[in-house]
Amino acid sequence: MGAPSFKEIRRAYGFDEVAIAPGQVTVNPDMTSTRMKVADHAFDIPIMASSMDAVVSPAFASLMHRKGGLGVLNLEGIYTRYDDPHTTLEEIASAPQAEVTALLQRIYAESIREELVGSCVETIRKSGAACAVAVTPQNTKRLSPVAVEAGADIVVVQSTVTTARHLSRSYEGLIFSKFVKQVKAPVIVGNCAGYSTALELMETGISGLLVGVGPGAACTTREVVGVGVPQVTATLDCAAAREEHFKRTGRYVTIITDGGIRTGGDLCKAIVAGADGVMLGTPLAQAREAPGGGFNWGMATPHPDLPRGTRISVGVKGPLKEILHGPTSLTDGTQNLVGALKAAMGMCGAMNIRELQKAEMIIAPSIKTEGKIFQLSRN
Amino acid sequence: MGAPSFKEIRRAYGFDEVAIAPGQVTVNPDMTSTRMKVADHAFDIPIMASSMDAVVSPAFASLMHRKGGLGVLNLEGIYTRYDDPHTTLEEIASAPQAEVTALLQRIYAESIREELVGSCVETIRKSGAACAVAVTPQNTKRLSPVAVEAGADIVVVQSTVTTARHLSRSYEGLIFSKFVKQVKAPVIVGNCAGYSTALELMETGISGLLVGVGPGAACTTREVVGVGVPQVTATLDCAAAREEHFKRTGRYVTIITDGGIRTGGDLCKAIVAGADGVMLGTPLAQAREAPGGGFNWGMATPHPDLPRGTRISVGVKGPLKEILHGPTSLTDGTQNLVGALKAAMGMCGAMNIRELQKAEMIIAPSIKTEGKIFQLSRN
Amino acid sequence: MGAPSFKEIRRAYGFDEVAIAPGQVTVNPDMTSTRMKVADHAFDIPIMASSMDAVVSPAFASLMHRKGGLGVLNLEGIYTRYDDPHTTLEEIASAPQAEVTALLQRIYAESIREELVGSCVETIRKSGAACAVAVTPQNTKRLSPVAVEAGADIVVVQSTVTTARHLSRSYEGLIFSKFVKQVKAPVIVGNCAGYSTALELMETGISGLLVGVGPGAACTTREVVGVGVPQVTATLDCAAAREEHFKRTGRYVTIITDGGIRTGGDLCKAIVAGADGVMLGTPLAQAREAPGGGFNWGMATPHPDLPRGTRISVGVKGPLKEILHGPTSLTDGTQNLVGALKAAMGMCGAMNIRELQKAEMIIAPSIKTEGKIFQLSRN
Amino acid sequence: MGAPSFKEIRRAYGFDEVAIAPGQVTVNPDMTSTRMKVADHAFDIPIMASSMDAVVSPAFASLMHRKGGLGVLNLEGIYTRYDDPHTTLEEIASAPQAEVTALLQRIYAESIREELVGSCVETIRKSGAACAVAVTPQNTKRLSPVAVEAGADIVVVQSTVTTARHLSRSYEGLIFSKFVKQVKAPVIVGNCAGYSTALELMETGISGLLVGVGPGAACTTREVVGVGVPQVTATLDCAAAREEHFKRTGRYVTIITDGGIRTGGDLCKAIVAGADGVMLGTPLAQAREAPGGGFNWGMATPHPDLPRGTRISVGVKGPLKEILHGPTSLTDGTQNLVGALKAAMGMCGAMNIRELQKAEMIIAPSIKTEGKIFQLSRN
Repeated sequence: MGAPSFKEIRRAYGFDEVAIAPGQVTVNPDMTSTRMKVADHAFDIPIMASSMDAVVSPAFASLMHRKGGLGVLNLEGIYTRYDDPHTTLEEIASAPQAEVTALLQRIYAESIREELVGSCVETIRKSGAACAVAVTPQNTKRLSPVAVEAGADIVVVQSTVTTARHLSRSYEGLIFSKFVKQVKAPVIVGNCAGYSTALELMETGISGLLVGVGPGAACTTREVVGVGVPQVTATLDCAAAREEHFKRTGRYVTIITDGGIRTGGDLCKAIVAGADGVMLGTPLAQAREAPGGGFNWGMATPHPDLPRGTRISVGVKGPLKEILHGPTSLTDGTQNLVGALKAAMGMCGAMNIRELQKAEMIIAPSIKTEGKIFQLSRN
Repeated sequence: MGAPSFKEIRRAYGFDEVAIAPGQVTVNPDMTSTRMKVADHAFDIPIMASSMDAVVSPAFASLMHRKGGLGVLNLEGIYTRYDDPHTTLEEIASAPQAEVTALLQRIYAESIREELVGSCVETIRKSGAACAVAVTPQNTKRLSPVAVEAGADIVVVQSTVTTARHLSRSYEGLIFSKFVKQVKAPVIVGNCAGYSTALELMETGISGLLVGVGPGAACTTREVVGVGVPQVTATLDCAAAREEHFKRTGRYVTIITDGGIRTGGDLCKAIVAGADGVMLGTPLAQAREAPGGGFNWGMATPHPDLPRGTRISVGVKGPLKEILHGPTSLTDGTQNLVGALKAAMGMCGAMNIRELQKAEMIIAPSIKTEGKIFQLSRN
Repeated sequence: MGAPSFKEIRRAYGFDEVAIAPGQVTVNPDMTSTRMKVADHAFDIPIMASSMDAVVSPAFASLMHRKGGLGVLNLEGIYTRYDDPHTTLEEIASAPQAEVTALLQRIYAESIREELVGSCVETIRKSGAACAVAVTPQNTKRLSPVAVEAGADIVVVQSTVTTARHLSRSYEGLIFSKFVKQVKAPVIVGNCAGYSTALELMETGISGLLVGVGPGAACTTREVVGVGVPQVTATLDCAAAREEHFKRTGRYVTIITDGGIRTGGDLCKAIVAGADGVMLGTPLAQAREAPGGGFNWGMATPHPDLPRGTRISVGVKGPLKEILHGPTSLTDGTQNLVGALKAAMGMCGAMNIRELQKAEMIIAPSIKTEGKIFQLSRN
Repeated sequence: MGAPSFKEIRRAYGFDEVAIAPGQVTVNPDMTSTRMKVADHAFDIPIMASSMDAVVSPAFASLMHRKGGLGVLNLEGIYTRYDDPHTTLEEIASAPQAEVTALLQRIYAESIREELVGSCVETIRKSGAACAVAVTPQNTKRLSPVAVEAGADIVVVQSTVTTARHLSRSYEGLIFSKFVKQVKAPVIVGNCAGYSTALELMETGISGLLVGVGPGAACTTREVVGVGVPQVTATLDCAAAREEHFKRTGRYVTIITDGGIRTGGDLCKAIVAGADGVMLGTPLAQAREAPGGGFNWGMATPHPDLPRGTRISVGVKGPLKEILHGPTSLTDGTQNLVGALKAAMGMCGAMNIRELQKAEMIIAPSIKTEGKIFQLSRN
């Protein structure tokens, strides 16, 4: 074994490997603000609900709005393919695990109906909520005008990996710089990891960027195709791009860490890594009001010949209100996420999200005291 | 993924990741001294019992004194809220695990009674023991005069994260530099992690500093809010601040590593990382005389809307005397902690705590030979 | 512990410790080519089947060819020792685990028959498939002429560790530079790890190099003798040698990562680490058509006095077609390996294998979200 | 958290974290020599049996000699305290695990009888074997003359940590430079870790050095008192001291890695880290002829008030001959240790131990392919 190597490889970090160090000043949590902005839209809490069918139905999007956040509706899922999505959801929830991926493949082979796109958007808007919709790049030109026409406030263009330059034989590539000018709503794009890609996407004029390739609990992209970037490093890199873009242009692009967040602790770490907000899938799929009925699955699960993810059982933890705002008697970090965020802000002396981004982060592998010498009884 | 990152993150270490290297000189353990000082108070062993209700009752504080150490009584716990704390402790010990956090929330909602503060302190003092009491910053101005009036020797101002500067809307912040001059007892402050914060706190005139944010076995702060610093790094950093402060002022502030210590090995590592002493919770909650009855829970457990920790079952290991001084037939490091400390001092050629702080420490992940090839039978 | 150390040790990485970062450009998978060349032989997919008796029989070699890849027949295994290999394979499959290594030792003590070497090669050639055969250095001079005479297209000279210089008392060492000129077929040599050894082997005129010492699932070389190099580092090093050799001579030697690949993700990582192709054992032993009948064992398993590996139960996953090309409903990465490769190429913007080698790789320990907070039900 | 830290801590490595990289030349194992020398005594294999009562009885020492190695008899164990050691050994083997440490404490409280020291040595010498005996520093002046008088060839002065300078109140410290001149046998000293300590001990004129503090399977020193150095780093450091001492004086001190070696792979790694030989406890306690009857315990286990280790069940693997020289059908690395060593030498192109010390070592965490995707059936 000798000197030269074929390429350099650098270390990347996930939530489990880091912790937040307390600050030199502390503040009372009741003095902190958790406000997040996407273009001109402001939200009381920096939390979006994932564009997954088990998480965001039109009704859940309205509920998220009432709790201060934003639900993103998947325009290529069950709600725009089936007149009666509830029956389909029940079918998924009751399928045996061994057969469920094949079932999902069949269910998502049904075609998307534009009239359902329109009516879903209208349902959300009628409730008084802001409406955000997600489309894949392939379908953006077709579906996003329908949604915006029906009243959608924010368009999310989302696939496993999205870059500013895509080569395709079968359809003319989506040119973000053109699309952003044409569509009458702010555009969030994702998912992305990496400084240069993030910078290039920001230069097209987007308002927000979803960060995260392969980290979600319901996603096996990294196992199946080897591609994936741990979320702390992905967020650090994209946040660096945001700062650079802001310095160059004065335009602030919202960074949203999407995937892999399971607890209040992870959420706080995402912010300290530089995010302005987070997108949550499984933690919200655990809400009593979530349409998945105790299950969750990702957008790549029903892929016809290479599914990357499966239906996972996430259980039902409690009402969305308690998951987001508490109070709670659970001590595993899965409830009162906003309370946890405010507590972390207090310990770091941060009055707002922008200040929490300046807190110190350390590399500190997860604690595993339990089961070592003390037997923790939690039954 | 590109060059610039949003921030630097440095590696931090916990007890499981380090070991002590033997010295170039060895001494017989019987020649070593384990003395610790806090201001003018000297203790034969460098061990404090945590200000947790399951660890230190007034009676246990007296016992700690007789064994050479110091017990710290929590002035905001069961002993100052209830006339009959034993009934309350039994209620906690017999509650089902699923309901215990909610029960703790209710129990700690009862108000603190100043006359009980006074009588607790007097009980400890009458036994001939030194009396140390713990208060949170919010209640320091109200409760500490009552305690000192009743005879308390040392005041510990303690919360999850304490800094020299705290911003609050609801109460006027505690100014340590003023408080230290007013109160007629040496002041220990905590908890803290980080060189600059430690230095700033020392400059206010305190006598001791509790090191440790989020590492205890009964604490889930790091899981719930993401904040936490592994103890070896936290101690190294605060010890560096103590040296700097000593160099500048000639005043030696006692560094006490608080939380995460489970064995004699951990205790020794804390000293080698720079501590002058340690504060133990769960290892002493396992004493036959501890009031928790085989359980332990932290000060953040009964938080009304964001509990960070739960009741853990720690079992009853033996009398406090054996845990501290042996002899023992146990080989898991949980008994004869002082014997272990003296053995380590012998192997490192250290005559006293200050010399043991100079021993070499290495990064060495825990040994897991067991269950690999040899099946260790310990049943 | 002091300053000077006896030697430097550098960090090496395996598949579980790295991930691929997406590119700045993406392409549609249907635009990518997965072509691999060995000398003048081209293959549609960069996958060889291992020269293990449980993987490649003459029939399986033909099948591999039809699916776009290349099967390598072990010339020192059951097929050239027994007239009726199927009976022997069944004997192995039905032996109790405690006795199987001793049984394998007995079975492989039978002598190799040259007429069976010839007839195996002819069977493969008659099917229209390219024929690759594997021999150990000791038997190369004796067996390879027989095989080439019978029509073998590629000769693989393979042992646990092969170098350009071997010292032996019992037989005259094989001199690769001479052998390569004499034999009328391109030569692949292995296994190898390390830049200098790889470079020295390439200078002898070989056409391909097998990379991997001790990483296979059916191999315990690293446990038994301590020797082993994690595959990512081994591949990076040998790929660096290939580039250097190409720069010096203009001759491109095919690098094949052999061993330790379990999923599509691992396969993709091998390419990003610099491989031109991979050799798979256990993943193909799981094919319905594989001769091992749900088991696998390595070439070092039947060693008469120091077996290094044992028979492992790998199960039967499905037809070879699905393992290689899908479609699949499995989401653990073990099926549709070529689909996974094309998906990774798409995410990295790579039109061919050579471009995928230029993708970015990061150090990222495996994700273990499962069983942490969410209980994944996969039963 | 700020800039200055209290002390530097450097990374240390154990067997599980490293692997040996193959060499650029390979040799046939039958051409290699595994010879080890201690002063003028030469041994065919570089393996000593530990001075543990469950490993070396006088009869086992004779057997070790016949198999090419050296058994070291503990002069402060059961064989020199009891007329009928077999009864005592059986008592230990049949005690329930919960009571065995207390039993060991009682058994080793019996006094050492000098006439038994003499007769043990004579028994070994009469069998024609070289006789090595182990004493602790406290008892060296009293027991070693008795043993040497009776014919002991090598004296091993051994305790958990031994340095050239020891301070004691209760007995006059052993001065090695004096002792080495007085005693009529070569002296091996240990255990030791660290360059400076090793160098200082070598300067006293010793012939061999035992390396290893706290790594053995039957030792919990690192857990109980926090002191311990992973074996690869400990060996690298002491080997560096040996080279330095040799350069300065021309005298070659034998480095013996003692503790933590479980497999042939570990043994080979110890040599590559710089050892001239190894001392084995548990792997030889597993021999059918070992006196422990399937159990093992360390010298620190019976400590009267701070036992550091316990009786572990190691099982009976086979006759010593198979453990050392094979042949074997086991593939877990616990049998044919010398065959494994010769295989590693072959892969590294090393003709003798001194050449194997020059092989390359890499940092490579243990492989855990098993139980990931393939279910290995080994029942």
